[in-house]
Amino acid sequence: MDAIDQKEIMENILYLINEQDEPSLKNIIVDTHPADLAIILQDLEEDERNYLFSLMNAETASDVVTELDEVTREEIVSDLQEERLSEIVNEMDSDDAADVVAELPEDLQEKILAKIEPQDRAEVEKLLIHEEDTAGGIMALEYIAVYEDQTVDDAIREIRRRAEEINEVFYIYAVDRGNRLVGVVPIKSLFLRNPRRIIKDIMHTDVISVTVDTDQEEVANLVRKYDLSAMPVVDQHNRLVGRITIDDIVDVLHEEANEDIQRMAGIADEEILQETSTFKISRNRLPWLLISFLGELGSAMVLNRFDATLEEILISAFFIPVIMATGGNAGIQSSTIVVRSLAMHETGTASLWNRVFRELRVAVLNGLIVGSLLFTVIYLWKHNLDFGIVGGIAILLVMINSAVFGAVIPFILSKFKVDPAIATGPFITTANDIFGLLIYLGMTSFYIAFWR
Amino acid sequence: MDAIDQKEIMENILYLINEQDEPSLKNIIVDTHPADLAIILQDLEEDERNYLFSLMNAETASDVVTELDEVTREEIVSDLQEERLSEIVNEMDSDDAADVVAELPEDLQEKILAKIEPQDRAEVEKLLIHEEDTAGGIMALEYIAVYEDQTVDDAIREIRRRAEEINEVFYIYAVDRGNRLVGVVPIKSLFLRNPRRIIKDIMHTDVISVTVDTDQEEVANLVRKYDLSAMPVVDQHNRLVGRITIDDIVDVLHEEANEDIQRMAGIADEEILQETSTFKISRNRLPWLLISFLGELGSAMVLNRFDATLEEILISAFFIPVIMATGGNAGIQSSTIVVRSLAMHETGTASLWNRVFRELRVAVLNGLIVGSLLFTVIYLWKHNLDFGIVGGIAILLVMINSAVFGAVIPFILSKFKVDPAIATGPFITTANDIFGLLIYLGMTSFYIAFWR
Repeated sequence: MDAIDQKEIMENILYLINEQDEPSLKNIIVDTHPADLAIILQDLEEDERNYLFSLMNAETASDVVTELDEVTREEIVSDLQEERLSEIVNEMDSDDAADVVAELPEDLQEKILAKIEPQDRAEVEKLLIHEEDTAGGIMALEYIAVYEDQTVDDAIREIRRRAEEINEVFYIYAVDRGNRLVGVVPIKSLFLRNPRRIIKDIMHTDVISVTVDTDQEEVANLVRKYDLSAMPVVDQHNRLVGRITIDDIVDVLHEEANEDIQRMAGIADEEILQETSTFKISRNRLPWLLISFLGELGSAMVLNRFDATLEEILISAFFIPVIMATGGNAGIQSSTIVVRSLAMHETGTASLWNRVFRELRVAVLNGLIVGSLLFTVIYLWKHNLDFGIVGGIAILLVMINSAVFGAVIPFILSKFKVDPAIATGPFITTANDIFGLLIYLGMTSFYIAFWR
Repeated sequence: MDAIDQKEIMENILYLINEQDEPSLKNIIVDTHPADLAIILQDLEEDERNYLFSLMNAETASDVVTELDEVTREEIVSDLQEERLSEIVNEMDSDDAADVVAELPEDLQEKILAKIEPQDRAEVEKLLIHEEDTAGGIMALEYIAVYEDQTVDDAIREIRRRAEEINEVFYIYAVDRGNRLVGVVPIKSLFLRNPRRIIKDIMHTDVISVTVDTDQEEVANLVRKYDLSAMPVVDQHNRLVGRITIDDIVDVLHEEANEDIQRMAGIADEEILQETSTFKISRNRLPWLLISFLGELGSAMVLNRFDATLEEILISAFFIPVIMATGGNAGIQSSTIVVRSLAMHETGTASLWNRVFRELRVAVLNGLIVGSLLFTVIYLWKHNLDFGIVGGIAILLVMINSAVFGAVIPFILSKFKVDPAIATGPFITTANDIFGLLIYLGMTSFYIAFWR
């Protein structure tokens, strides 16, 4: 559905909603992919949205709810009758059902759980105990497992028995009689083997799995590294308890990238892109604004301390923005690369010094180029050779300082288990501003005192 | 392999390499996953790396080369003999082989292509014509397709026939006699149906596909949106020509996130995290440093223009960093959220004004809070009520200006098909600095002229 189609479809749907043309709307619902229906709902006003949603049967509604962004999902779910909500939850895979139920107020959670089928209820309750951002929190209970001493034919029977409830079957997991995960069989292998072959004899035993409390980012990194299409989840005793499918991993990767990017911009918690509440957005962005505000008061104090210098050579004030901004940019380039390396686990602790030296070399080279330019500008514009030299050397030193600082701080933060992504935001910029001013104005006053 | 294991394993391997203990090293190679072998190679010096790599058989070597980062891969490949290189390429899937061959110098490309099997050669040549970052550039030719009028049994036979060369089989694609894609059958369905059923009667006809020239980011967004596990690729006439597997999509998502994050930090082309050449890194980072340097000379000119103002109220210079940094941060927060929304296609063009108004409301609220604080600081510190009012209002206006600017610019860039991610980097910061100084110093000189 590209942008033009989408606009046309939206206009058509709005018209049909105003006409309350139920048969046509129901036809559209049947013909449209749930992911597209979710986008349409997100673009509608509350009344229109609730009306269109009410025309969907429970199965479609459950697929659509799973695809909605968090903000719209909460709005739609909070407007639903208990009866309808439990019908919808009933139709979901265990992991999606648990996600929706987890977002409900506690009293409503119990009411909904009481109304859905006992088996589904037990599954959802089993999933609710795990933290949201762990393997346990994103796994589903829909997977195919057979005992290692069963046959290929038994595995095929098991697939047939459960095919209805499990959407994607790529691997069959093999467990021992204690339910411990011992092997994996790609589904295609079942076609290649004699149906009487024992699973144990055809399975891969080097199966990669995670435990329920593994962080979701770690799970995603493993899936990416080993090119997996699904990840089995085990408990502390290596007993198979769930499976994470690749589409959920794709969502995790996407969420984590979003989170990193937003943190780098100085946004405290992930801001849902569809969030519309001014107060919620403000509260989420204000902390880093205030931290940088307070930090920059440090800059004001540095400038206050050097007021005699500024009065003596007023033109030194003119170059404060260019020196601070260029130093800041060099620092952000360094810290961004280090933060990405750390996030990718592509940097061992041994390589800290390699990395810092690399950033130092780049800063010296770029600093020499930019420093020569600033010298030339000051000399040609202000006809001041001496101060040109001061400015040129100052911007070189400020860039080196920022680059080294930008490379080291993320390592220190990750050592203390703080997400290094915050280092590239206002934090490092503010610190660079203060150090940069100290270097630049310190050099300028030294020049006034001893050279001029 | 966690960090501690990795360190121990590395020490062990280094010892064995120094001892030239081939049997032990070969045992380690057999027992270690290719992805882990790739990480080990990346951490070794060139001589040790080439020695360890020489102990791998062609099959393992081909798996390892596929997993290596770009920089290490180029280094290893350039040290290989033609004979060995063509053996390794021969073992690869068509898409990986094409990637490796594409990176070779042209004369070597032809030599290697001449040495690999004719069928593989034809496949690689077919893939080489596509742009690197399109569906054609990342697709593989290993997929299972049957004619729609064939039976389930024919499909199973086809899987058996090609199982060796195709690693992951999740879907069977159905084509008509003109090879046009008409349907898709999940592999598990083959177990559920009578082997004599016709594919046409059991296939899903609403199959989502992309054409060879679709941008890889667009492919990844579709896979994410529709929760697919593989994406069929067709030519302009809807003829099936390839398949993209989910592990390649995961790599694309990862690459695109990296690229976005780096662009936001003012790094021109994606910087490979393992790149060690100072000149290459410098050349990649210098352009944005220079653009921001030139832009900030604009700041210097603004300050020069207002030199009388600065001399009149020197304390006005003290608050330049805090006003510019806070405004800059507010602008980066706004532009980051808008850039993410655009990248996710979660924002239609109609919602531009919604988005700008949302950012405006947030900027007014946060600006009032920060403005009151700055007023209080100036009043308490400098005992200057009037200038406190000037500073407080100035920071509010600067934040509003930056936020609106930060929200609008990405839309304009994407309108002109420029990647909006560059908007959040030095570009917007520099523009905000100049406008911010104009607002702040303009207000200050207005205050001097008409109020004081």
